[in-house]
Amino acid sequence: MTDTLIQEKLDQAVAILQEKGVDTWLTFVRETSQVHDPCLDLILGLELTWQSALLIGRGGERIAIVGFYDTDNVRNTGGWSEVIGYHQSLREPLLNALERLNPAQVAVNFSESDPAADGLTHGMYLVLTGLLAGTPYADRLISAEAIIGALRGRKTPGEVARIRRAIATTEEIFAALTPRLRPGQSEIEIAAMVKAEVAARGLAPAWSPEYCPIVNAGPDSSPGHAAPAHHRTQRGHLLHMDFGVKQDGFVSDLQRMWYFLDEGEAGPPDDVRRAWEACWAAMEAGRAALKPGVQGWEVDAAARAALVAAGYPEYQHALGHHMGRTAHDGATVLGPRWERYGRTPYGVVEPGYVMTLELGTAVPNRGYIGLEEDVLVTESGAEYLSTPQKEVWCI
Amino acid sequence: MTDTLIQEKLDQAVAILQEKGVDTWLTFVRETSQVHDPCLDLILGLELTWQSALLIGRGGERIAIVGFYDTDNVRNTGGWSEVIGYHQSLREPLLNALERLNPAQVAVNFSESDPAADGLTHGMYLVLTGLLAGTPYADRLISAEAIIGALRGRKTPGEVARIRRAIATTEEIFAALTPRLRPGQSEIEIAAMVKAEVAARGLAPAWSPEYCPIVNAGPDSSPGHAAPAHHRTQRGHLLHMDFGVKQDGFVSDLQRMWYFLDEGEAGPPDDVRRAWEACWAAMEAGRAALKPGVQGWEVDAAARAALVAAGYPEYQHALGHHMGRTAHDGATVLGPRWERYGRTPYGVVEPGYVMTLELGTAVPNRGYIGLEEDVLVTESGAEYLSTPQKEVWCI
Repeated sequence: MTDTLIQEKLDQAVAILQEKGVDTWLTFVRETSQVHDPCLDLILGLELTWQSALLIGRGGERIAIVGFYDTDNVRNTGGWSEVIGYHQSLREPLLNALERLNPAQVAVNFSESDPAADGLTHGMYLVLTGLLAGTPYADRLISAEAIIGALRGRKTPGEVARIRRAIATTEEIFAALTPRLRPGQSEIEIAAMVKAEVAARGLAPAWSPEYCPIVNAGPDSSPGHAAPAHHRTQRGHLLHMDFGVKQDGFVSDLQRMWYFLDEGEAGPPDDVRRAWEACWAAMEAGRAALKPGVQGWEVDAAARAALVAAGYPEYQHALGHHMGRTAHDGATVLGPRWERYGRTPYGVVEPGYVMTLELGTAVPNRGYIGLEEDVLVTESGAEYLSTPQKEVWCI
Repeated sequence: MTDTLIQEKLDQAVAILQEKGVDTWLTFVRETSQVHDPCLDLILGLELTWQSALLIGRGGERIAIVGFYDTDNVRNTGGWSEVIGYHQSLREPLLNALERLNPAQVAVNFSESDPAADGLTHGMYLVLTGLLAGTPYADRLISAEAIIGALRGRKTPGEVARIRRAIATTEEIFAALTPRLRPGQSEIEIAAMVKAEVAARGLAPAWSPEYCPIVNAGPDSSPGHAAPAHHRTQRGHLLHMDFGVKQDGFVSDLQRMWYFLDEGEAGPPDDVRRAWEACWAAMEAGRAALKPGVQGWEVDAAARAALVAAGYPEYQHALGHHMGRTAHDGATVLGPRWERYGRTPYGVVEPGYVMTLELGTAVPNRGYIGLEEDVLVTESGAEYLSTPQKEVWCI
């Protein structure tokens, strides 16, 4: 199954080279279990040991030049039409392949701005320029960041199917948790129940286990990246959770909310209900703005303006991020043009992007309301991959 | 406990800077959970998110300039006397720290030859040279490979203690396995018994689980890096295992041998006994040559010559490698001067190195004899950390 995904991504890579007018993409690595290039997860799905060159040509060429002992594993991926093993040095097969491809530009796996496109180490850059010295290709190296960013961001059908499964599992876990929630439980106890559900399914959390799930019970618990603590659920308070699983190599990332009904209450009180509606409307305003061709900051601005217009403060983070192999799997952020986001809010949204939409507000004396759903960008807009939580769940 | 190790390694790093006459060592990283610099395991024990600069000065300075959200975690390691968090850009605190240190050379985390010293990505090298442009430090960058190689290779007392514990656990697992061995068991079944012992102790294998343990039953099973298969133990045959565990962050790497007594045999037959003695004597010849000041290839040559002199073929690999945090944890190889080992056999042995000693030979119609022990290089020679197997264990 991994192999099918690798083939999908390699086909996509060739199309991206054609679209961007780049002749050849070279991924140059060694000992990737020590220093791992995140690109390999997209185009190979294996670790490589000796110096290795993975060349993709805009004509569809897929040439892997790897240490002799790695050749069988690379062949078995089914994605590389030419697998060349070497014993002594990759210089000759590399130069030979470049001569055949004769590229006007060689896009290489380095980037100043995108860590996910920056797997080439500086030592290996020196090795590469040494190998190419005296050839015409030495002066043709460019950054592959545009290729890698597009390849990572545009999910294939196989990738979307896996993300959907991770989301469905996450929703199952929320459904299993809800009937077990009671007033008086601590964040730590609730996190333990969630972790047990993850473990029982043989899965891993979507991000660092200390912060997955994030659990916030009541108004004294601060959202953001803090580990679950001793705050306890209480009648009249909110419970907030930010959580996802990693399944078959792909993640989900969702926030869900519960309200503990107070004596005599049949539903959430007005302050909770109003804040919920404002957050939901703001998120939907973001989703309405999310379509191919817009820049990330425009989507964020739509949601941000809606929340502020409803009388709530601006949220202090971005509206959304890519997700896929990790909880931040792509180069564009749906965020404000603040310096800390660098160039990422200026990225242009494309079909196939899978993004989160997330925002929230504190309700005084109740707790934090945070909404987060996962959506797929299609040609015409953005559709939910998750089953959106339209109302707070009452306990 | 990790913090104590980090402090030991940082103290050691300062001493290495003084010894090598280098003023400052800079480790420059970002988003290390995506592209991990192996150095961080030695000097930090954490992941870092935003652009981060870890500066160690020969005067004992330990300055960490990290994103604001990482400052508490870095402070909690106890190893960094100055932890500077930033919000917008690390340029100003970095240039300020360099001005204070005023180094004649800044050794940076890149290396053409040693992947474990090559965690700086090329994009981050461009970022760094951009930050330093117009300062005197731009022209003072050198490779930190000599510092990192020494720091990784020379184990501290805390590191040696952990390696000893991993070895002791491995020997316990061999002892638990031996009474359960019978003729007719497959390599896969035997590997499963070993894996169950590892799991019962809450540990991980020392290297990739597919190949840990490597199990070879009888003459049809090839040693080397192949997964356990369907070959079965049989009377008159050898059983060979290459195995280690990872415990508290450190590994063991040992080979052990069993012989299945044939009808009427009270001990191993002459062909097995002679081959065993030749291998054991060759390994001991290597150990006798292993002391501070010799080059790796000299140690290998001593063992290799002893085995050939006893009438057995040369082994087709190196005699030994560093071990510690991984099964290959240092820059020197005790290996022949073959091109595929590059410069690594020319490394000079130092006190504190923990190395494997391993060699073997096939015994026709019996199987493969492979010996491997773990040793610590002291001022005067090399002492066993493992309890060496002096005789094949008979079943």
